[in-house]
Amino acid sequence: MVSPFGKHILAEYFECESSFLDSEPAIRKLMLEAASRSGATIVGNIFHHFSPQGVTGVVVIAESHLAIHTWPEFRYASVDLFTCGTHLNPWIGFEYLREQLRSRRWVSKEIIRGTMEEQGNSSMMSGKVALG
Amino acid sequence: MVSPFGKHILAEYFECESSFLDSEPAIRKLMLEAASRSGATIVGNIFHHFSPQGVTGVVVIAESHLAIHTWPEFRYASVDLFTCGTHLNPWIGFEYLREQLRSRRWVSKEIIRGTMEEQGNSSMMSGKVALG
Repeated sequence: MVSPFGKHILAEYFECESSFLDSEPAIRKLMLEAASRSGATIVGNIFHHFSPQGVTGVVVIAESHLAIHTWPEFRYASVDLFTCGTHLNPWIGFEYLREQLRSRRWVSKEIIRGTMEEQGNSSMMSGKVALG
Repeated sequence: MVSPFGKHILAEYFECESSFLDSEPAIRKLMLEAASRSGATIVGNIFHHFSPQGVTGVVVIAESHLAIHTWPEFRYASVDLFTCGTHLNPWIGFEYLREQLRSRRWVSKEIIRGTMEEQGNSSMMSGKVALG
């Protein structure tokens, strides 16, 4: 794997208009394409269709992972694009997915991983075991 | 799947003392156990050992996913515990992993997924496509 310092985009896609949301083959294809467009090296993937509806899937990449969970009944998908190293651009994958899912409202958040630095979020907790 | 509203714990485990970090079978076992202890229903998993070192893996659960990426050379592991629904407690999995990896410093952050509500993080961006 590459450097542990990476970007993690958490995305919420609301008001999706895509019929893809309940199709495991279509969601798998989208996520693999999002990984490729972001510049990732794909090493595996696992997808699952739930009954009565919904798809979950993860693309494992050499630079971490991409994950998706869809709720067709709410026209909603949650996506994680976690890419380590400096040569990737997960925002390309984010935009590709937003377009393909035809999301009309979305929220995204980028978090830097692999650092002890706090990022101004009051929900963060940290700990340390005393040496000795 | 269950309700789209869920807890997503992002954890950074530093100064790990475990020899597990470079063992794909051991990391897989830990992550499956963390999922079970959190109350999750496991539907699949995928793990990969990198050359020369490092393990990446994801446990797909009916309530979203757990993911881990390890860098033995930095004694570091990044973990995501994303669980939807109200009957799970991913913090149990977080504590279990912290103990097993013998992490001496850690940072964790809990993010609520599946909501448009902003959570006071200036790095968050949102968008909306105009109707009509």
